[in-house]
Amino acid sequence: MNKGLLIVVSGPSGCGKGTILSQILKNENIYYSVSATTRAPREGEVNGINYHFMDKQEFMELIETGGMLEYAFYCDNYYGTPRKQVEEMLESGKDVILEIEVKGAMKIKETCPEAVFIFILPPSLNELRRRLEKRRTESEEKIEKRLAEAVNEIKAAKYYDYIMVNEDLTKAIDELNAIIVAEKLTQKRSLNKIDEVLNNA
Amino acid sequence: MNKGLLIVVSGPSGCGKGTILSQILKNENIYYSVSATTRAPREGEVNGINYHFMDKQEFMELIETGGMLEYAFYCDNYYGTPRKQVEEMLESGKDVILEIEVKGAMKIKETCPEAVFIFILPPSLNELRRRLEKRRTESEEKIEKRLAEAVNEIKAAKYYDYIMVNEDLTKAIDELNAIIVAEKLTQKRSLNKIDEVLNNA
Repeated sequence: MNKGLLIVVSGPSGCGKGTILSQILKNENIYYSVSATTRAPREGEVNGINYHFMDKQEFMELIETGGMLEYAFYCDNYYGTPRKQVEEMLESGKDVILEIEVKGAMKIKETCPEAVFIFILPPSLNELRRRLEKRRTESEEKIEKRLAEAVNEIKAAKYYDYIMVNEDLTKAIDELNAIIVAEKLTQKRSLNKIDEVLNNA
Repeated sequence: MNKGLLIVVSGPSGCGKGTILSQILKNENIYYSVSATTRAPREGEVNGINYHFMDKQEFMELIETGGMLEYAFYCDNYYGTPRKQVEEMLESGKDVILEIEVKGAMKIKETCPEAVFIFILPPSLNELRRRLEKRRTESEEKIEKRLAEAVNEIKAAKYYDYIMVNEDLTKAIDELNAIIVAEKLTQKRSLNKIDEVLNNA
């Protein structure tokens, strides 16, 4: 059996990656990698679903023993991707999706060069602003800050293997599914099929 | 508008590429490149549909003026892929499929390195033999010859960008469609989208 595919998905806040991924994850062979964090659970958050909640000592031990594929310190807390769960799922043939910002993705590129990197663009910055404003949860100032961050993230899209635009949700879901299907057929992941056919005479 | 994709499809006789392609070609944005030949039309064959029929002088002129993307001499006749029709369709944004054997595909790789190369494998040599025998149009000797040719062609699959197995027709059609969708999203073909989003503020 072939190993699963490690799929790294990035895109600015408001690009719609959450909505796209929720559809992709209906496929039972695709798993979502749950991040670890040292921050306290918020009301309603469930350990192992929203995050793997752990104390700082546990998190630092994982870092020191190579147990984190990537991690970052943000607003007084650590966030990271535990290696063990990802590798176990990949070994069992399941695909794993990491939804992660650009810096984390670039670290994954070093630790897991065989991963597939997909960047989701909004159709335009205007449309991104409209989507952020529609949420009505953030101040104008925060939206401006998010847009500035978005511009920086979008510039990093060139480091990804695939660049897609979320203009139409159905199309975007089809495109992400197509990437997952096609990537498994690439020569580097399919060379074994040649011998299988020739030896299965 | 982006240029269309040049899609080169190879696979041994009996791998089912004709059936797969007939489904793919229902998409009106995908064109099939009709070969040119110097052989005489057989009964029922239509110029421009089955082949572009031309005389030897016309064919040689095309070769000499760089008008053939690839050509071969086979059973006393020339066969080739006229460059003009392919390039016109690509320029108009249509994808073009070339169904072609390995040697021709390798020539296309030199003249059109931006093309996408897809190899279709049969599930096994046994299954390939079964499919060839089912046609009941060829002698046992011819089938053995085709199988020997198939082994040689299959070994060349490693030079292709994608390697797929036609075990289940529906799955194979989905896979070929997925490759076409995903290939257009690859970084090298999508870098322009980043500027489009950033400049479309």
